[in-house]
Amino acid sequence: MSDTRSKFMEVYSILKSELLHDSSFEWTDDSRQWVERMLDYNVPGGKLNRGLSVVDSYKLLKEGKELTDDEFFLANVLGWCIEWLQAYFLVLDDIMDSSHKRRGQPCWFRVPKVGLIAVNDGVLLRNHIPRILRKYFREKPYYVDLLDLFNEVEFQTACGQMTDLITTLEGEKDLSKCSSPIYRRIVQYKTAYYSFYLPVACALLVSGEKLDGHNDVKNILIDMGIYFQVQDDFLDCFGNPEFIGKIGTDIEDFKCSWLVVKALELCNDGQKKLLFENYGKDNPSCVAKVKELYTELNLQGVFSDYERQSYEKLTKSIEAHPSKSVREILKSFLGKIYKRDK
Amino acid sequence: MSDTRSKFMEVYSILKSELLHDSSFEWTDDSRQWVERMLDYNVPGGKLNRGLSVVDSYKLLKEGKELTDDEFFLANVLGWCIEWLQAYFLVLDDIMDSSHKRRGQPCWFRVPKVGLIAVNDGVLLRNHIPRILRKYFREKPYYVDLLDLFNEVEFQTACGQMTDLITTLEGEKDLSKCSSPIYRRIVQYKTAYYSFYLPVACALLVSGEKLDGHNDVKNILIDMGIYFQVQDDFLDCFGNPEFIGKIGTDIEDFKCSWLVVKALELCNDGQKKLLFENYGKDNPSCVAKVKELYTELNLQGVFSDYERQSYEKLTKSIEAHPSKSVREILKSFLGKIYKRDK
Repeated sequence: MSDTRSKFMEVYSILKSELLHDSSFEWTDDSRQWVERMLDYNVPGGKLNRGLSVVDSYKLLKEGKELTDDEFFLANVLGWCIEWLQAYFLVLDDIMDSSHKRRGQPCWFRVPKVGLIAVNDGVLLRNHIPRILRKYFREKPYYVDLLDLFNEVEFQTACGQMTDLITTLEGEKDLSKCSSPIYRRIVQYKTAYYSFYLPVACALLVSGEKLDGHNDVKNILIDMGIYFQVQDDFLDCFGNPEFIGKIGTDIEDFKCSWLVVKALELCNDGQKKLLFENYGKDNPSCVAKVKELYTELNLQGVFSDYERQSYEKLTKSIEAHPSKSVREILKSFLGKIYKRDK
Repeated sequence: MSDTRSKFMEVYSILKSELLHDSSFEWTDDSRQWVERMLDYNVPGGKLNRGLSVVDSYKLLKEGKELTDDEFFLANVLGWCIEWLQAYFLVLDDIMDSSHKRRGQPCWFRVPKVGLIAVNDGVLLRNHIPRILRKYFREKPYYVDLLDLFNEVEFQTACGQMTDLITTLEGEKDLSKCSSPIYRRIVQYKTAYYSFYLPVACALLVSGEKLDGHNDVKNILIDMGIYFQVQDDFLDCFGNPEFIGKIGTDIEDFKCSWLVVKALELCNDGQKKLLFENYGKDNPSCVAKVKELYTELNLQGVFSDYERQSYEKLTKSIEAHPSKSVREILKSFLGKIYKRDK
């Protein structure tokens, strides 16, 4: 494990221990054990990209000046707040999508004795964030801005999730709703704000910046987030389940995926009929037919082209940004996701 | 409808309309319709006691001085934030408890086409609160205190809900866990903070008070909240479903209810065996046996005694409080719940 990563994990242990002794609640042994197991199962097991990128971004914003121990610690804490937020979304999303696996293990609600208690566990994860923020940032001049930022980004994510859910409503199954503009909206709100904008916004606040002046950075990060989700949709169907840690179910779940949006744009009437008949069915032979059609339409090639074009466009936007440290941050983000296979 | 109530409802319409045009999200007609229907279904249909009590408490704190239109409006807004919080808890609790009815209509997740999308709707309801607070209180000196208050109370409620859920874990069904101290803890955290302390704390903040100096008020309100939940548990079994708007399922759901805690304290070995064998079974004849046992143990009489004693104790604590306006607030709360039948 890299040094940054192992230090990041140390901060997790500290935060967890503090939450398990939060004096706003009278703990029992049972409740403490429950929360500890729930945190260990859901919070630290991912790639930690979002969290670590707060630390990376903050270092770059300091332009080579060494971080003090305190600054380093606080950036790690904010990184973990984003990982907590992510865990909260994933625990609840998996329930809503009836998913089976996440990060190579059964989804939390599928663990014996958990079930729908996972809904409240999601709520607890979400509630841990302001507890952490209050403990470490209460006296900082940017405390209110941090609270507002997390609140706004969570709101946008929940709105994106709503758009996703009502577009793919069980029973309606109206594929024609899966258009490019709707797709962009779902992805921008559901993923891009919290995965791409939020880490950098945290780093900016902790560096003493105000967020109002950074709309250009936000826009580039949102575009990068959209590109990231397109990759995710591609990997859901064409990725290696062992690499990505889950078995994709976007086709069964009638998801408004980038692949189905592209397929609808490229298909002829006969192919469209096949798509309408087989998409969103929890039946392996229907899923196979959809995948065959994707291959017939050469969506792998279409994706490669999209990937290259996105990379070029993003690189151009990044180069146009006046601040060197901001350019570094954005390049580092892009480097991490370009041509990823998990 | 009383004047206060109809003015309160007017503020609901204003808040709803603002949320449906929140510029942090790009709305579609579908998403706006979804949220509007979800809000109308879940937010304003209750007794509104929590929300209205912010307004009542604030009036009493002003000691007869007329509220300005602006002050009155802001108290109404805070009242609605609590109603939104309540709606959020109820939508999610009903999912976790597999409840059927709420406020005389099917639970939201049981409405056709809603299902588990209700999880995200709960999240949305919760996210509306900081949106409302930001719009109306961002420039107030007590803005941070309001955010911290809502965050802390939500955290306490989620911890109480966790204790409740893990005490009555499916599959474990260990009735001996339902003891008086565990019961008190569940109820204090799950209900009392948000239902009793939060409205008064909101009124205190908007009056320019700091909350640190009001621990005595908090303690009395928490005791009142516990008394309120005991009533709730009693009504779940012995209340009139048409009055209370739902059919109680505490016995089927293996709830750590005040009634089962008392029954366990009062029963002999034979009765205990009957209780262990029939509690927590989704079978009408088991439920009937438990209810018969409750009657055999005269829990109606035990409840009456508890109710009278609580009233006397609370009245004594209230009379001992130095501030007249605080005494008035607390008396008004107590008056509203004493001997309630819904």
